Amino acid sequence: MHLAVDCIIFGVKENTLQLLLFKRKVEPLAGEWSLLGAFVERDESVDDAAKRVLFELTGFDSIYMEQLHCYGAIDRDPGGRVVSVAYWSLIQLGEERETFSNRYDEAAWFPIEQCPDLILDHRKMVDRAISHIRERAKFYPLGFKLVPEEFTMAQLLNVYEAIFGTKLDDRNFRRKMQSSGLLIRQDKKDKSTSRKGSFLYRFNPERYQQLLVEGYDFGI
Amino acid sequence: MHLAVDCIIFGVKENTLQLLLFKRKVEPLAGEWSLLGAFVERDESVDDAAKRVLFELTGFDSIYMEQLHCYGAIDRDPGGRVVSVAYWSLIQLGEERETFSNRYDEAAWFPIEQCPDLILDHRKMVDRAISHIRERAKFYPLGFKLVPEEFTMAQLLNVYEAIFGTKLDDRNFRRKMQSSGLLIRQDKKDKSTSRKGSFLYRFNPERYQQLLVEGYDFGI
Repeated sequence: MHLAVDCIIFGVKENTLQLLLFKRKVEPLAGEWSLLGAFVERDESVDDAAKRVLFELTGFDSIYMEQLHCYGAIDRDPGGRVVSVAYWSLIQLGEERETFSNRYDEAAWFPIEQCPDLILDHRKMVDRAISHIRERAKFYPLGFKLVPEEFTMAQLLNVYEAIFGTKLDDRNFRRKMQSSGLLIRQDKKDKSTSRKGSFLYRFNPERYQQLLVEGYDFGI
Repeated sequence: MHLAVDCIIFGVKENTLQLLLFKRKVEPLAGEWSLLGAFVERDESVDDAAKRVLFELTGFDSIYMEQLHCYGAIDRDPGGRVVSVAYWSLIQLGEERETFSNRYDEAAWFPIEQCPDLILDHRKMVDRAISHIRERAKFYPLGFKLVPEEFTMAQLLNVYEAIFGTKLDDRNFRRKMQSSGLLIRQDKKDKSTSRKGSFLYRFNPERYQQLLVEGYDFGI
C-alpha cells in the first residue's frame, strides 16, 4: 500500500478564486491535469511530505497548509493501491507567485469555474476543499494573509466574493464585519480609487484569535 | 509503511459524554488503554476498515462515523512507521450498547473527564475530536440520533450539556433552538417528570438539511 499527498492550492486574485494545477508527466494518465502530489517518504511525516511537494514544484515556502481529508477507496488509482491525504491552502496571488519557477513546463492557475478535467478523484478533493473553505469563512475569521496589513473594506469584500464565487451584499458585509470587532479602523485613508478615499483597516489580533476559537456568524 | 485506523466513539448518557476504550492485548504497550484500532487491509477502503474494526470489537453496526484527521508523524508509534486515520462517532448510550458483546474482557466506557492515560497519540486524537464536535455543535444541527424521535427540550439540552461538558443557560438555549426553526412542537406532552408536563418536539427534516448546509448560530 502506498501513501501519497495531494495539495489543493487556491490563489485569490482580485475577486476570483484560482486553482494551481500541473500537467502530469508520468504514466498512467500522462498529459492530464492534476493536483500537486507525491508519495510520502519513509523518513518524513505526512504533513512534511505535503510541504515538500509544494516547495519542490513551486518554490513556495512557509505556506500554511491544512489537512483536508484522507482518500482511501480501493480503486481510486488505476496504478495501484494508493491512499492519498489531501491538503489545502489559500494564498494571495501576487505576481511572484504567478510566475514561480517550477520544474514542469506546464503548471497553471485556473479560475475554479474554468478548470480542466482532473485525474483520479482530484475533482472530488477540490470540491470538498471549496465547501470546507466556504463553511469556515461563514463562521471563522479567514483572510489574515489574503489582504495587506492595512486594507480597505472593498479589498476584504473582494476576498470573500472570490471565496464564495458570488457578489455579496456590500452593506450587509460591512455592517457584519464592523460589528464583529475583528477590524480596527485606522485614521488614514486609501485615496487610490476615489477622491473621498476609503478608510484603511487592520485586524484586531486578540479578537482574531478569540473568534478562531469561538466562531462568529459573519452572516454570509 | 503501515496504514491504520483508530475509532473515537463517544457515547452520550444523560448529560455526560463518555468515551469507549479498550485495554490493548498485544505488545508493544499491552495492558494500556487505547482507542479501537486496526491496520487497513489491502482489499478494503480506509472508511470500511474503520467500520470493520468497530463492528468486530463491539458488534455495533450501521453507526455513522466521520473522518477526523490523518496522523502521520514519523515517530508516533514505537512499533514502526504507522500512519493512522482517526474517525469519530457520537452515539446515544442505551443499555444494549453499554453491555455490547466484545472479544476483549476489558472494554469500557469512561466519562471524558475521567479517562485513563492513553497510548501513543490517542489523547491528541480524542482532544481534537472533542474540539471538532463542539465547533460543529455551535453552528450545525447535531443530535438527530442522540434524542428519541419525540423529545423534550430538557432532553435536547442534556445532549448539548454533555457535548460541551458544562451547564448551559436553559432559557437562552430554548430561545435559540426555537427561533432556529429546527424543531416542530407536538401537541402532546411528556408528563413523566412533572404534572404540568413538557412539550414534545420533533426535528423539522427540511430545515435540518438546510442548516446542515448553511449553518446557523445556535448561540452556544
